[in-house]
Amino acid sequence: MLQFIENDLQAECVALADRAKRASRELAIARGKAKNEWLRRSAEALRVRTEELLDANRRDIAQAPTYGLSAAAIDRLTLNPKRIDEMAKGLLEVAALPDPVGEVITSSRRPNGLEVSQVRVPLGVVFMIYESRPNVTLDAAALCIKSGNAAILRGGKEAIHSNVALHRVLADELVPSGLPGDAVQLVATTDRAAVGYLLKLPDRIDLAIPRGGESLIRRVVEEARMPVLKHYLGNCHVYVDAGADFDMAVSIIVNAKVQRPGVCNAAETLLVHRDVAEGFLPRAAEVLRGMSVELRGDEASRAVVPWMVPAEPSDWDTEFLDKILAVGIVDSLDEAIAHITRHGSGHTDAIVTSDLAAARRFVAEVDSSAVMVNASTRFNDGGQLGLGAEIGISTDKYHARGPCGLRELTSTKWIVYGEGQIRE
Amino acid sequence: MLQFIENDLQAECVALADRAKRASRELAIARGKAKNEWLRRSAEALRVRTEELLDANRRDIAQAPTYGLSAAAIDRLTLNPKRIDEMAKGLLEVAALPDPVGEVITSSRRPNGLEVSQVRVPLGVVFMIYESRPNVTLDAAALCIKSGNAAILRGGKEAIHSNVALHRVLADELVPSGLPGDAVQLVATTDRAAVGYLLKLPDRIDLAIPRGGESLIRRVVEEARMPVLKHYLGNCHVYVDAGADFDMAVSIIVNAKVQRPGVCNAAETLLVHRDVAEGFLPRAAEVLRGMSVELRGDEASRAVVPWMVPAEPSDWDTEFLDKILAVGIVDSLDEAIAHITRHGSGHTDAIVTSDLAAARRFVAEVDSSAVMVNASTRFNDGGQLGLGAEIGISTDKYHARGPCGLRELTSTKWIVYGEGQIRE
Repeated sequence: MLQFIENDLQAECVALADRAKRASRELAIARGKAKNEWLRRSAEALRVRTEELLDANRRDIAQAPTYGLSAAAIDRLTLNPKRIDEMAKGLLEVAALPDPVGEVITSSRRPNGLEVSQVRVPLGVVFMIYESRPNVTLDAAALCIKSGNAAILRGGKEAIHSNVALHRVLADELVPSGLPGDAVQLVATTDRAAVGYLLKLPDRIDLAIPRGGESLIRRVVEEARMPVLKHYLGNCHVYVDAGADFDMAVSIIVNAKVQRPGVCNAAETLLVHRDVAEGFLPRAAEVLRGMSVELRGDEASRAVVPWMVPAEPSDWDTEFLDKILAVGIVDSLDEAIAHITRHGSGHTDAIVTSDLAAARRFVAEVDSSAVMVNASTRFNDGGQLGLGAEIGISTDKYHARGPCGLRELTSTKWIVYGEGQIRE
Repeated sequence: MLQFIENDLQAECVALADRAKRASRELAIARGKAKNEWLRRSAEALRVRTEELLDANRRDIAQAPTYGLSAAAIDRLTLNPKRIDEMAKGLLEVAALPDPVGEVITSSRRPNGLEVSQVRVPLGVVFMIYESRPNVTLDAAALCIKSGNAAILRGGKEAIHSNVALHRVLADELVPSGLPGDAVQLVATTDRAAVGYLLKLPDRIDLAIPRGGESLIRRVVEEARMPVLKHYLGNCHVYVDAGADFDMAVSIIVNAKVQRPGVCNAAETLLVHRDVAEGFLPRAAEVLRGMSVELRGDEASRAVVPWMVPAEPSDWDTEFLDKILAVGIVDSLDEAIAHITRHGSGHTDAIVTSDLAAARRFVAEVDSSAVMVNASTRFNDGGQLGLGAEIGISTDKYHARGPCGLRELTSTKWIVYGEGQIRE
């Protein structure tokens, strides 16, 4: 573990990544039993060592003003017995998920008698770079180990003491569970150069996962020489079609906007078909106003609800992450799809409609990681879609798209058994 | 199509990629029937327009000496009626493969009644950069279109006339088949700058696939801002275990080395367990010598077969692509696996053994795209493993590993149907 290293940080980073790579070879063939044992032992240890964790967390909280953290950020950073208990439960939930390693994806017997199968194997070493919430330390370690990958964790400086303490709890249970001691390592320095050094090691690190603000993600993508699993933005749309049920549409846009405005699958733009604008928009606008949502309308929607703030062109491309909603009227389903194609971020988009043909066209033509028909955008989430825990949501199309669970942390291998077959 | 463009090549490249992106949206929702219709019409057109293709090819052959092409390279470049007929058959074989688009990967009904499915969708736009063999123009176009992707093709300058003619045949059948006319575009300039411009357009091009020598691939990886599907090297091993059948082992190493020495799944190193070196190695060496294979042995194997050339350290890391084989003796299965882990390229490795435990350990611990037990390394091939045609072999672990067929040219999308569900 790199702790407060000052000299030769680069060499330490290489050595850390080497240890991770060696550990990953043992982990790749570790039994599911050992991995689950580690998850259960770690859950128990979190509870037993709660005081030690709270002590470390208090040091982070004490220094939070130095970093100018907002009250909300300090709240996200804070640990308490209830939150530690939830973390422990999270580990047990991962233990209960099926082991993705060894899953047979396809298998066949070839005409020449070869027995061919494609099986799931771990990626190898996963490097997780994240911001202040210390529970990501737990989630990332749990999902990496369960999927057979060694983890290198790099949390934010604001949570350094909490992360060191959490990592110590996790690391102490590795060897007793029969797993390599370097399977979970923490980059325990606040020197940002360490991230840069590690991102330059594609032979040792198989995947980088940044979780945090857009600037962190862009920096990682720019510097990484290995694949990066990420999403930049969640500019999500709800489109209320001519054939929509108004009650349902109000309920969905309210849920998509208000239930948790600061997350990536919250809605940022409401599009309404012209035919229902007069009937639907005033109702929806009243309800949203009652929930303190600022509405920014285009000219057509302000003709229907004049008190809306005029929308600026940039509003269509903005992830507000706040109680702000852009509102536009479209003439047709085609126009709605064209708007989403132009302004959307490929994250999550929803249609509210009772028209089967419209639903099918929306599903086929909107090119996003998840497309919802008559459901809130907030359902684009690993737990909600049935993957169990998730390590993030990808808006890329390569390797993984949408919520990333255990399977998305794996690769595959072809295994061929024969009895002396040669190629003719 | 960019043909002999001189001014503002960069703007032309952006325009070409824009056309590809627009075409990809139509292709993503194209019927399988239209895609197969195009494949069948193109196969027919290749036969009907054979003379036109041969004329163009003759122009490439005539200028081949300018590029200093070897006799073997000229042979690979040459078209004749038989080869054109084989290309046409290749298109029909792709038509017969199942359509990967729309395949449901997982589906479930969630406790709240949401119907959730993960379905296969095209990646979007695929940019293929390849060297002299003109049949890649056909293969790449066929696999891209069948998987619903728009193709941008960039063949080598040595084949420019053949590629222009082949592309014309393919492109002429797009609109009559009901597909967008820009679904297959050729970058018909010999200016290498065009490749650099296109590789800088990640918003328009979803995947780059270089096929050719290592220097081409490294250049594409260096410049590309989108994912790259590739393999650098095939440094493949055959390990003859203590429990090997000697006849089988000779047959496998001969096939792996000699059947086609210049391809990536040919063997480059033979490792032999010490216990069987005396019995096996002299026999194998005689047979290989009889087939003009140069053997480069370590000290221990030269003690058994003294006439072998002494191996240099670099031989263990070399993809000879020729009738040359490095030969080493190992003390154990562990040592064989360690050698492959250190020197291998993660492409294809084989064990010959009758010992079940050794086979299972080799399969589990050798981290390669394909691992063979008692079979030739040459079977790591899309056709041989049952994928149908392949667009290349990946030694990466991210997205696709091993032979890449139609599925590897797709992404996924989550589709959720509800009746007004919101997140609690």
